[in-house]
Amino acid sequence: MNFTLHHKDSQTKARVGSLETEHGVIQTPIFMPVGTAGSVKAVHQRELKEDVKAQIILGNTYHLFLRPGLSIIEQAGGLHKFNGWDRPILTDSGGYQVFSLAENRKITEEGVVFKSHIDGSKQQFTPENVMDIQRTIGADIIMAFDECTPYPCEWPYAKKSMDLTHRWLKRCIKRFDETSGRYGYEQHLFPIVQGSVYKDLRTESAEFVAEQGRVGNAIGGLSVGEPAELMYEMTEWVTAILPEDRPRYLMGVGTPANVLECIALGVDMFDCVMPTRNARNGMLFTTEGIINIRNEKWKDDFSAIDLGFENEVSNFYTKAYLRHLTIAKEMLAAQIASIHNLSFYLWLVGQAREHIQSGDFPQWKRHMVEKVSRRR
Amino acid sequence: MNFTLHHKDSQTKARVGSLETEHGVIQTPIFMPVGTAGSVKAVHQRELKEDVKAQIILGNTYHLFLRPGLSIIEQAGGLHKFNGWDRPILTDSGGYQVFSLAENRKITEEGVVFKSHIDGSKQQFTPENVMDIQRTIGADIIMAFDECTPYPCEWPYAKKSMDLTHRWLKRCIKRFDETSGRYGYEQHLFPIVQGSVYKDLRTESAEFVAEQGRVGNAIGGLSVGEPAELMYEMTEWVTAILPEDRPRYLMGVGTPANVLECIALGVDMFDCVMPTRNARNGMLFTTEGIINIRNEKWKDDFSAIDLGFENEVSNFYTKAYLRHLTIAKEMLAAQIASIHNLSFYLWLVGQAREHIQSGDFPQWKRHMVEKVSRRR
Repeated sequence: MNFTLHHKDSQTKARVGSLETEHGVIQTPIFMPVGTAGSVKAVHQRELKEDVKAQIILGNTYHLFLRPGLSIIEQAGGLHKFNGWDRPILTDSGGYQVFSLAENRKITEEGVVFKSHIDGSKQQFTPENVMDIQRTIGADIIMAFDECTPYPCEWPYAKKSMDLTHRWLKRCIKRFDETSGRYGYEQHLFPIVQGSVYKDLRTESAEFVAEQGRVGNAIGGLSVGEPAELMYEMTEWVTAILPEDRPRYLMGVGTPANVLECIALGVDMFDCVMPTRNARNGMLFTTEGIINIRNEKWKDDFSAIDLGFENEVSNFYTKAYLRHLTIAKEMLAAQIASIHNLSFYLWLVGQAREHIQSGDFPQWKRHMVEKVSRRR
Repeated sequence: MNFTLHHKDSQTKARVGSLETEHGVIQTPIFMPVGTAGSVKAVHQRELKEDVKAQIILGNTYHLFLRPGLSIIEQAGGLHKFNGWDRPILTDSGGYQVFSLAENRKITEEGVVFKSHIDGSKQQFTPENVMDIQRTIGADIIMAFDECTPYPCEWPYAKKSMDLTHRWLKRCIKRFDETSGRYGYEQHLFPIVQGSVYKDLRTESAEFVAEQGRVGNAIGGLSVGEPAELMYEMTEWVTAILPEDRPRYLMGVGTPANVLECIALGVDMFDCVMPTRNARNGMLFTTEGIINIRNEKWKDDFSAIDLGFENEVSNFYTKAYLRHLTIAKEMLAAQIASIHNLSFYLWLVGQAREHIQSGDFPQWKRHMVEKVSRRR
């Protein structure tokens, strides 16, 4: 996997790069739509390509492991073959979902024992089997198994958890490096920086992660309820330590404004369920601000959802029609809103790339953060 | 509206025609996807055109009248403008839904008083206001307001109901002919033959309907629970009376086999919720028979959903992936299955047209009815 830095902004830490994988090149900064169970909810694979212009999508290891299960994915020849998405895929490690979804979870040095939220079956994740599972799923980018601390989190627990995550990381790396790709293409492991909102811990973790010398690095444990300012502060602190010549992935972030601010702090990759989850609740992110399409005020607004960027779906359907579909609980509402929100996110990071290259990123970002944060 | 008969099968009553409307030409025999609330559930408008190849869709007057309501549709400039579907639209009269969905309905000579199933509000449908409502919705083809009798239904009630439907039809025609299209294009009224499963009543009703000399005619009150053989018998009986030079629309029919059999009986137009509703429950109609995709046997079947006809969606996704999405309750499951089922129906009527024209319709139909009826 080759990461090439093409341009660095002179005033901020924003940068433009490209990340080569065997399933295609990813232009950074990039937003990655979340396809939890092997499907980006309500969006066809061809729509992800042609409308959303997604370059890489996520899969959730926890969900895929439980259903359809590894045997099916393996027989299919990996997730790309199973779901028909032939561009890059990143899988998370399952750690986050174990802590948020599973029942009766018990964390030990060895790993985590938990009960499936689907059928109650007892399961175990360890650094080793999570590497094997992601190898079998066939992701291009594989995440280390970590514990994601909640917010707030006392320093002693954050420290203890980070130390465990570091020991797990060593085991992840050992297992990953002893094994190889299952389907004829290379896979890559990203370690994750933890340390909650404590600068001393973040420093220790970022240095530890950087020392591993992997092809890319991730920042975890943020966007878990802390104030945005604290998230920015930690992100800036960590990106200053992580190597400049490797892509940096900020996990689970965020709103359009969050994404723009963190691009300015040197982040290259983002994922978040917000554009799709909020779409299903009728919240639209647009070039003119945030819309709750259920609001009465849109019932007779026959203007397009968003004319601020070129996109067939956003330019075609009207706000009044989308409101009607949403109120009437028509599935097409979620389909339209999901395509729109994701397209908007991908358009936004594409614009960021252009403005970093043209040299006016800071001014553009200031203006855009204000525009896209407005409630309409 | 011009209906041109291009070809008649020599052995059956099947025929190929074309029906010209100001929103485009409809090749018959045709299947019309149902877009209840202004959206064919789970299918984008462009998918209806490009994948399904729908030539005309339905809207339900009852649903659209209650939500979004006439004021919104009128302000949009009619349903075509509201939902972005620029090909022909047919609306039913709302009668069927009033009897199946509304509460506290009371039928009188004047019309039907009922309570909305959405907000409990008291509403009234009369032959006159139902014409006005459909005028305002802007359908190309408008259906007469009728009472659809259930099955079974005693002769005296069927007779009484048919007589009322006939009196209502006269009022529909009067109102329709006194008014004109709201949006600059012509609209057309189809009367509906009733009479339950009684040949004497069906004769009386078909003759009464034929006498009105409208541009097209419909057969209602079938596919309401009666055996298929009885439905075929009534359909054959009625098509023998309805004028040959006008399109015949059999309402609410049916399975792929039902559609083929009724094409052979001289029917030109069909609608049914089955392809979309059953899709949402995991039932697929394919060129090789009927599939319940939830079935365990498909979990590791990595063959395409259907390779029996050219269709991007049916040819792209595998049975194993669609089963996984269905079991995992992913919205994409309903989207894929709905496009597939509708595409299959439209492919099937297209094939019927070709075989009527090439002269081997009866043999082809016999073979195809058997193939598509199999449970796999």
